[in-house]
Amino acid sequence: MTASLIALVSDFGRNDWYVGVMKGVVLTLNPAARIVDLTHSVPAHDAPACSFALLATRTYLPAGAVVAAVVDPGVGGSRRVLAARSAGRFFLAPDNGVLTEVLEADGCERMVSVENRDLFLKEVSRTFHGRDIFAPVAARLSLGMDIGRLGPETADYMKLELPAALRGPGSLAVTVRWVDSFGNLITGVTGEMLAGAIAEWGAAVVDVGTAAGIPIVESYQSVAAGDALALLGSSDRLEISVREGSAAARLGADVGSVVVLRKT
Amino acid sequence: MTASLIALVSDFGRNDWYVGVMKGVVLTLNPAARIVDLTHSVPAHDAPACSFALLATRTYLPAGAVVAAVVDPGVGGSRRVLAARSAGRFFLAPDNGVLTEVLEADGCERMVSVENRDLFLKEVSRTFHGRDIFAPVAARLSLGMDIGRLGPETADYMKLELPAALRGPGSLAVTVRWVDSFGNLITGVTGEMLAGAIAEWGAAVVDVGTAAGIPIVESYQSVAAGDALALLGSSDRLEISVREGSAAARLGADVGSVVVLRKT
Amino acid sequence: MTASLIALVSDFGRNDWYVGVMKGVVLTLNPAARIVDLTHSVPAHDAPACSFALLATRTYLPAGAVVAAVVDPGVGGSRRVLAARSAGRFFLAPDNGVLTEVLEADGCERMVSVENRDLFLKEVSRTFHGRDIFAPVAARLSLGMDIGRLGPETADYMKLELPAALRGPGSLAVTVRWVDSFGNLITGVTGEMLAGAIAEWGAAVVDVGTAAGIPIVESYQSVAAGDALALLGSSDRLEISVREGSAAARLGADVGSVVVLRKT
Repeated sequence: MTASLIALVSDFGRNDWYVGVMKGVVLTLNPAARIVDLTHSVPAHDAPACSFALLATRTYLPAGAVVAAVVDPGVGGSRRVLAARSAGRFFLAPDNGVLTEVLEADGCERMVSVENRDLFLKEVSRTFHGRDIFAPVAARLSLGMDIGRLGPETADYMKLELPAALRGPGSLAVTVRWVDSFGNLITGVTGEMLAGAIAEWGAAVVDVGTAAGIPIVESYQSVAAGDALALLGSSDRLEISVREGSAAARLGADVGSVVVLRKT
Repeated sequence: MTASLIALVSDFGRNDWYVGVMKGVVLTLNPAARIVDLTHSVPAHDAPACSFALLATRTYLPAGAVVAAVVDPGVGGSRRVLAARSAGRFFLAPDNGVLTEVLEADGCERMVSVENRDLFLKEVSRTFHGRDIFAPVAARLSLGMDIGRLGPETADYMKLELPAALRGPGSLAVTVRWVDSFGNLITGVTGEMLAGAIAEWGAAVVDVGTAAGIPIVESYQSVAAGDALALLGSSDRLEISVREGSAAARLGADVGSVVVLRKT
Repeated sequence: MTASLIALVSDFGRNDWYVGVMKGVVLTLNPAARIVDLTHSVPAHDAPACSFALLATRTYLPAGAVVAAVVDPGVGGSRRVLAARSAGRFFLAPDNGVLTEVLEADGCERMVSVENRDLFLKEVSRTFHGRDIFAPVAARLSLGMDIGRLGPETADYMKLELPAALRGPGSLAVTVRWVDSFGNLITGVTGEMLAGAIAEWGAAVVDVGTAAGIPIVESYQSVAAGDALALLGSSDRLEISVREGSAAARLGADVGSVVVLRKT
């Protein structure tokens, strides 16, 4: 049997050795582990951004994958570490809300509070549970260990209050949830929400930052180079882009900027 | 049999989850895949830079390697995806010229237009063929699938018109093709071209940016720390460096800057 | 038998293909190699920083791991390449001092000068021994090759003169050794040194940059968000942090800044 894939999400960046030592710990316990870096560029301590990154990526991971999400400003304090099974995948995360959107979307088959210190590194630091708790526990889960061995079952977990969509007559206001390296502005508007709005209104445009009336198109080629466009992006979310340019820079928008989808 | 190595080149950067989800897709289809990131820092949408990156790295990949090159400003439009076998390696790339230099250098044993949708993800987005087409096709090729199953044979592909070398009496003008993180300026002058020029002229120096008469040496130790030098770099190309410094910063040069190799 | 883990440390950054081609060479010789990037963000040519990175990470690598440390301003000159076995792990490094702290901490079981050209790539460039020497030698060591085949035994190697701790009555002055991506200032003061000072003095505080009297605490939660604190960090070293902020930016400190630990 092949061991399960381990996927890592964090705000550690790529410059330090933090991700590398997590992998060293994993591979010490499971020498055959396969590890994928989803992203280590969640903005520092930003639980809502981490929640969105997990939501946007989970469906591209195979059954049984173990996702360790280490965005953890409360490390060393009293926050718990949770392990949840959702849609056949395992998620290890601090109890600070980062699991909110995955569990809302896919449901939670089982959740435990990770407390069995026999499964951690012998010495657990106050500042790096990614290495001392998440890495060894992920390695053991990837080898098929039952989640029940990690600690007691739990039903409650911290839920983020995420910026809700504000619905008016003929308009829908949301916020930018992620800005990628190309400067694309990714919103929380799903394909289903977008289709519903268009069905109701007939046609719609988008306002964000310094631009109003951005057309909703099928592909980048529908506008000229340098022009703004909105489309259903690869994460099944409405994205605002500038063809061969950066929407973030051109439109002066960032994570949290308000995006209005409106009837025309 | 060990599956073939998969090597990735893109302009996705390292901050987002795009590379991570491509790996998730590959490992879902081929759980034993071995994946190497060659570079994800090709300048955005820069086909000539991607072409050069493929040229500079290919010979260090094992026989049978599958290289997916996703620098693709035309994604979602009508450009084709090509799969080419060249010197025993497989290259998957949009038909936008990024294969120009590899195929010129090594020839093309076979090329097909990638059109068999049964081999793609079920839903193909308009903006992320790296995940929806390149990743699943690369996974299948790494498992030994015949390239002919991808689509019809094709002979023509888009060729970039790359800045040619301008030859004068006793001089050769080229451009900088890549600037690395150390600030080294990598040109398109090969070891063979350099040896030919030296054989003809006896001796030569290099002019670039604010510096003239840069000596061509054998190793960094031939000049003092802080001084400029030119040498045949690790990519078998003439590079201009500053010892323990950045040539790009010191000489005010970048990709596209003119470099003159001249007789002394 | 599973091949040994290969761990990479360099100053190559992540933008170029240098790390990728090293992996291509490794996987050509050992298709089953498992490779971990510890960090490629050692400041360019900074042997003391590389020495500290090796010291801080080595204990999280499994027995038999092969660590290739390529921070090598003298590449192409006359400096040797060393292979050392220390605490059951193998270290490949230029003889420029980067092994200083690992060998001081763990001792050296065996050391050879890497000279057997049959084990290198056929053509060895003047500028990229990481690819031409370190990668193929690491691949062979990971397959179990005896270190003695690399070259003659040697006992001497270059030792860095690292900034020593300056001890006064009731004070200890050291320097910042690494600044991580969160802006944490990592010093060379170990848990043992810190415990000794506290035992002798009763209580202590830290001065660095623009801040004096920083409290030494057990976890980030001991101070308010935005406040400075010192604690024994995950590398078993005294670190200065700002809760949910950057100590480097807030206190105006960097690698080399003086840190004073003093009695209160």
